[in-house]
Amino acid sequence: MSLESDVIAMLARARAAGRKLALAHAEQKNAALLALAKIIRASRSAILEANARDLDRARSHGRAGAFLERLTLNESRIEAMARSAEEVAALRDPVGEEIEARRRPNGLAIRKIRVPLGLIAIVYESRPNVTVDAAALCLKSGNAVALRGGSEARSANSLLARSIAKALVEAGLDAECATFVENPDREVIQILKQHPELIDLVIPRGGKALKDALEGSAVPLLPHFDGLCHTYVDRAADLKMAEEICFNAKCSRPSVCNAMETMLVHAAVAERFLPAIATRLKKAGVEIRGDERTRRVLRDARPANEADWDTEYLDLILSIKVVDSVDEAIAFVEHHGSHLADAIITQDSSAAQRFEREVDSATVYVNASTRFTDGFEFGFGAETGISTNRLHARGPMGLSELTTYKYVVHGNGQVRG
Amino acid sequence: MSLESDVIAMLARARAAGRKLALAHAEQKNAALLALAKIIRASRSAILEANARDLDRARSHGRAGAFLERLTLNESRIEAMARSAEEVAALRDPVGEEIEARRRPNGLAIRKIRVPLGLIAIVYESRPNVTVDAAALCLKSGNAVALRGGSEARSANSLLARSIAKALVEAGLDAECATFVENPDREVIQILKQHPELIDLVIPRGGKALKDALEGSAVPLLPHFDGLCHTYVDRAADLKMAEEICFNAKCSRPSVCNAMETMLVHAAVAERFLPAIATRLKKAGVEIRGDERTRRVLRDARPANEADWDTEYLDLILSIKVVDSVDEAIAFVEHHGSHLADAIITQDSSAAQRFEREVDSATVYVNASTRFTDGFEFGFGAETGISTNRLHARGPMGLSELTTYKYVVHGNGQVRG
Repeated sequence: MSLESDVIAMLARARAAGRKLALAHAEQKNAALLALAKIIRASRSAILEANARDLDRARSHGRAGAFLERLTLNESRIEAMARSAEEVAALRDPVGEEIEARRRPNGLAIRKIRVPLGLIAIVYESRPNVTVDAAALCLKSGNAVALRGGSEARSANSLLARSIAKALVEAGLDAECATFVENPDREVIQILKQHPELIDLVIPRGGKALKDALEGSAVPLLPHFDGLCHTYVDRAADLKMAEEICFNAKCSRPSVCNAMETMLVHAAVAERFLPAIATRLKKAGVEIRGDERTRRVLRDARPANEADWDTEYLDLILSIKVVDSVDEAIAFVEHHGSHLADAIITQDSSAAQRFEREVDSATVYVNASTRFTDGFEFGFGAETGISTNRLHARGPMGLSELTTYKYVVHGNGQVRG
Repeated sequence: MSLESDVIAMLARARAAGRKLALAHAEQKNAALLALAKIIRASRSAILEANARDLDRARSHGRAGAFLERLTLNESRIEAMARSAEEVAALRDPVGEEIEARRRPNGLAIRKIRVPLGLIAIVYESRPNVTVDAAALCLKSGNAVALRGGSEARSANSLLARSIAKALVEAGLDAECATFVENPDREVIQILKQHPELIDLVIPRGGKALKDALEGSAVPLLPHFDGLCHTYVDRAADLKMAEEICFNAKCSRPSVCNAMETMLVHAAVAERFLPAIATRLKKAGVEIRGDERTRRVLRDARPANEADWDTEYLDLILSIKVVDSVDEAIAFVEHHGSHLADAIITQDSSAAQRFEREVDSATVYVNASTRFTDGFEFGFGAETGISTNRLHARGPMGLSELTTYKYVVHGNGQVRG
């Protein structure tokens, strides 16, 4: 059999299993999730050994630094995977939820009911914990899932996939509900993206290479791509608050999509605000790149060039620009931002209102850190990614974003006139 | 300038106009809609003349029948367009609606607010009233719209587009909010589908040729394609009710997507039910194609072949199959249906429950006609199409399905730990 017919057959089995999973009761899905937590805890040492093989292979391919860090499992990360499965079990089952109900004048009772999407393909890189997290979330929301992890984590992923299959079977569900695509060939992604009749949604979690590989996908994507986030310190900002928020937005975890990349500062407060925040940022190792007016205040800042305003550093680098008005700040964010998360710091409610209305981003903050753009922080009890799409789901996603709906209409003989 | 650069420049202007429209108040949008109704009524004779030119051209290209019927405008259809603009003005503005609000333990106030999608492209065929209806619905929901009508209606469409532009300007909005693509070249569709950075959504309203032309679109689609609808008459059906519903589902408007194409009848009631419904259907000119068991009862029915079960007739033709159980009915619908609208007729609540849970269609009916799958009939106050997608919107669409949302988060200095 060719790779393509192999993958298609696998997807067809997953899809068929998903139709049964869609109708499973919450108790059965939860039993599988709790069994999975147990199996993961019981196979800690085997998981660590598999991960050691992955790490050896990665080192022999010359990988280092952040890459190895993301790939590494340890006792606490394994425990976190088990706990994550338990936490998903504790979440409310979104399937069957009545979203809306209406009765029409002709007596028809129309209910809008949440149902699973079907088969979701998740394409991800390096972090093996995604295998467990993504499978748990899809399972709970009644969706079959096809997991396509990166080749670098294949030993741990493969073991975790077997654990998931075992847990499903223990709970009386089909192992095929969660299908792991073992083949690390990039060609697999080209196959996945061509089969909308089998896959309802692809969720890509990765960088530019993955984005490029999925271009032209016939299957709808719920991408989780760029985060070029701004914080605008208004002339009416509480500058101490602005300092805490900007420092947090840049430094608490610079490698993630909701970290601040560009800070805009109103000219009226630049001279007071910039030296204080710069001292603190530099102490934390942040390189500052400023426009000309910033550099009049921060004389040792590197000059920012045009490319800086469009760069997602994901690193300890911050570009700073001085602006003359909230209008200029909004126009700048709209032009250069990725529309994921942007903040204004101000005590002026009319400036806040303009910013929150006119900045067209998935999450817009007034007096808080952009770092809160996250499913857990939003209280969704789960993190299924942060959509950079405008359709279907935007911003932090919870379980319900993995569902669609159907209308169930009850009548007693109504016909249309 | 090339066609491509022309179209791109036009889309960019529409997109920019849309950013302002997104922030417009309901009063201003309604003023434009009411102005449009007035302009349409005042230019009745010019619209009829333009339509006459379109009809002449169509006849000279050998068009006839249903095609000409769809293309034809008359006094009452023009009045219906004007009224439609007024009705959209009367609808509640979805923009700014608070969908959800939550306060987090850290004090963050998170609101989920409905906002426009941005720029919507609507690609449609023959019916010139779509020009007005689609523009009105996009305008009300704060979206800029690029209208690409069929070449056959270009004279009327062009006049209606000028009426829309005039109405926008009268209300102080940018004429570019509704942009009509005059060029009838099929190439235009190929350009539209390649610019997701300019267009947020394409809504195609048309047949197979349009579906094929949009294959591989980089812009998300909200298609409105096939409707292969079933009605299953259960053993526990009220047979008089079943007769009324099936007759309505087939005959009230056979050319539309929510009309019944296949009727499934439980073996236990086939002998009693089939002769009565068949007499009535035949009187209405319906050709019946039956499986072997159907033809044992209806001896003069044509035999149905395998292709019949997968055919959307959109005509006075009905295929009929006798089944032995609700399971068989569900499996048949799942295999052959287009998942748009399917119905069960039964007095047995457990059969009804199984059907409504297990049939994975956008709208599932118990004891009512599939013909109710429609935005107006669902009480949405508008008809923006019936989505055959699972993502974003499924089934009948109202105004809110033309929107997305943003999260607006208010804090007082919160940072992430």
